[in-house]
Amino acid sequence: MSERIPSPVDLRIDARWMIPVEPAGVLAGHALIVDGGRIVALVPADEADRSYTPRSRVTLPDHALLPGLVNAHTHAAMTLMRGIADDVPLRAWLEQHIWPREGRFVAEDYVHDGTLLAASEMLRGGITCCNDMYFYPDAAARAYEQAGMRAMLGVPILDFPTSYAADAEGYLQRGLEARDAWKHFPRLSFALAPHAPYTVGDASWASVVTYARQLDLPIQTHVGETRHEVAEARAATGESPLGRLDRLGATGPGFIAIHAVHVDADDIDLLAAQGCHVVHCPTSNMKLASGVAPIAAFLERNVNVALGTDGAASNNRLDLFSEMRLASLLAKVTTGDAGALPAARMLRMATLDGAAALGLDGEIGSLTAGKQADVVAVRLADIETIPLYDPVSHLVHAAGRELVTDVWVAGTRVVDDRMPVRIDMPALASRARAWQQRMA
Amino acid sequence: MSERIPSPVDLRIDARWMIPVEPAGVLAGHALIVDGGRIVALVPADEADRSYTPRSRVTLPDHALLPGLVNAHTHAAMTLMRGIADDVPLRAWLEQHIWPREGRFVAEDYVHDGTLLAASEMLRGGITCCNDMYFYPDAAARAYEQAGMRAMLGVPILDFPTSYAADAEGYLQRGLEARDAWKHFPRLSFALAPHAPYTVGDASWASVVTYARQLDLPIQTHVGETRHEVAEARAATGESPLGRLDRLGATGPGFIAIHAVHVDADDIDLLAAQGCHVVHCPTSNMKLASGVAPIAAFLERNVNVALGTDGAASNNRLDLFSEMRLASLLAKVTTGDAGALPAARMLRMATLDGAAALGLDGEIGSLTAGKQADVVAVRLADIETIPLYDPVSHLVHAAGRELVTDVWVAGTRVVDDRMPVRIDMPALASRARAWQQRMA
Repeated sequence: MSERIPSPVDLRIDARWMIPVEPAGVLAGHALIVDGGRIVALVPADEADRSYTPRSRVTLPDHALLPGLVNAHTHAAMTLMRGIADDVPLRAWLEQHIWPREGRFVAEDYVHDGTLLAASEMLRGGITCCNDMYFYPDAAARAYEQAGMRAMLGVPILDFPTSYAADAEGYLQRGLEARDAWKHFPRLSFALAPHAPYTVGDASWASVVTYARQLDLPIQTHVGETRHEVAEARAATGESPLGRLDRLGATGPGFIAIHAVHVDADDIDLLAAQGCHVVHCPTSNMKLASGVAPIAAFLERNVNVALGTDGAASNNRLDLFSEMRLASLLAKVTTGDAGALPAARMLRMATLDGAAALGLDGEIGSLTAGKQADVVAVRLADIETIPLYDPVSHLVHAAGRELVTDVWVAGTRVVDDRMPVRIDMPALASRARAWQQRMA
Repeated sequence: MSERIPSPVDLRIDARWMIPVEPAGVLAGHALIVDGGRIVALVPADEADRSYTPRSRVTLPDHALLPGLVNAHTHAAMTLMRGIADDVPLRAWLEQHIWPREGRFVAEDYVHDGTLLAASEMLRGGITCCNDMYFYPDAAARAYEQAGMRAMLGVPILDFPTSYAADAEGYLQRGLEARDAWKHFPRLSFALAPHAPYTVGDASWASVVTYARQLDLPIQTHVGETRHEVAEARAATGESPLGRLDRLGATGPGFIAIHAVHVDADDIDLLAAQGCHVVHCPTSNMKLASGVAPIAAFLERNVNVALGTDGAASNNRLDLFSEMRLASLLAKVTTGDAGALPAARMLRMATLDGAAALGLDGEIGSLTAGKQADVVAVRLADIETIPLYDPVSHLVHAAGRELVTDVWVAGTRVVDDRMPVRIDMPALASRARAWQQRMA
């Protein structure tokens, strides 16, 4: 057998436990090889020694290495309203607390600062990619680009005017201009994001569907979030909100149903038949007393389910470690089955299934050769995670986001020993506090 | 007006926000004065300047200061089985995973090491007092004494033999000997802890009730944890488990009903009429798919409700920040009322109401002059807690236990900048890992 010449590569990471997600399981004594921003290989350390000469090397002796978490639903800039109104149900919360403040304050600089704050929090917590939905997606794009984070930006669409646009067509045009402006930035992608069935009328939905087909863009919307929403919709047209969107042609493999708490058997049939995705936001649905989405029923029908934090105004953490634990606990208690949503299943929901919801599972979501090197290191060495019988169990049931030490996106280290390296954190904190002064 | 001579005192703590719990609210510009292990005053800073000359002074410019959290139910030493068996319902979890391992490994050194691990985790997370229930309470007492933590130790009582004792009378005698041995240690107290109605027969309950009355000890037991338990009890005697304990004389203001998930209207009447306490363990009840305790119904009837983590084998965190958030979310979604269990109410449940359940609300649970100085500092300055409109909201909905920086018990600093100061942490970690090797 001839000697192979080792290949030069950008980076080798050795970690105590490698958790690729796909395939499920935990590898010990392995190294992750990264080059040109992509994963080249996940191989035993001795094979890595023979085959690669890394220009840079990181050794993580107490850490689990996993794919970056995917936050499949958030309104990032709403970090600036974190904790401004708790203990209020959805409609009153929107109408009395959130929308009036948004009307007064939301603008380019607000969205940039709020999104940068969110990106810092998410990256520090191991979230390398999010699906955002907010006004001024161009300002959000600037923040994600600066932070070095991956994001899908939802072009917001409403039938009522805001400072951002006057009508549905106006929202669409502004959003699509932002998309054009950012089309050469590979970490950013766009989707159409009509707010909800009850805030966007049939004509605007038809326009959304047309644009989505022409431009091959996903459609994401809040749907079936509250009992009230469904009752109103049924009273108006006799259809469920999802049924109406299906009639309008919005459903399909590019359709992301956010929340999907109040769905009936026909809705679940529809989601399954059309290959739609659901984003489960357990904290937000509980905090606003909206309800609990029937996740076990979705999974039984092979409806893909991703995990989201929603915005920091209704959570109040952009923390997928909390959401993983909560989603698992909630599935167990609502089904009466302690075996529901075990830890490995949850980790997949927070990574690969989230990537699939965003149409990005060919690029991210697992430690697989050829995918982008979006990678998170979690240190499992403090007394809160000792003893350790199974690192996957600890990631879901014992660890917190504060144990994330290092994060790479597309092979670039963006968090180093808990600090986002591309963001001036003191300046950001002081800008966020200035917004607080104005809004309080 | 004559000049007062300032009093010399042990300690003055200045913190940005003081959250005394009783009365509710947040004070700014105040100082906490501590002497002889007790709180002397909580006064405006200028009054503190005039009235006290502290021997030691701590300034916490970015912190909220609050009473130490009270973990009203745990099996501390079970930290050594953290994550050893997830995704299994209660009965199978006990019978197939926990009891067999306990039979093989539980002994003095196991309990000491596991409890010290738990105490380290709890103190680091702002828990200054816990209500423990496990074998070898004398070994646990040694660990709490070493850690500098406050604890109520439940004397375990079962009708079946273990390595610890042969029968109910044996458990009682051993437990009461431990109580005698530790009676001069003011941070430690004892309770009688029959495991559950279904593991302790009528004769043993009668004996427990007699001892509790003679020695003025609280009684704590797991009751109404699963639907199965209640159905079996009803089939056997026609009574609910709580009804049976009431008939046996166990209920009263010294009775702590742990879990109380499956209770009917008569049970709630009984708890209210007898002045019993309930310990809510939301994570454990969800993880084992046991159910959700009707907390709103208890509070409506003025039944005192405390908060517990349960053991780390069914949680897997000894973390009251997580439990506060979860209990609040769970109350909102199960009642359909987004206003249920607001943040200030949760903080009271995790402090003063926990103290009341343990019969210690005269001594701990609020920042009140005359009470023990069990005090926790939480740093609210990282981006995860910016902006900040209300520190109480952040403590429940945004903060994590990792933001606890400093902890005092009876005026002695036991955690300094996140490190338990009275415990050799590397030695403890290595002992815990040795147990892991033996048990895996």
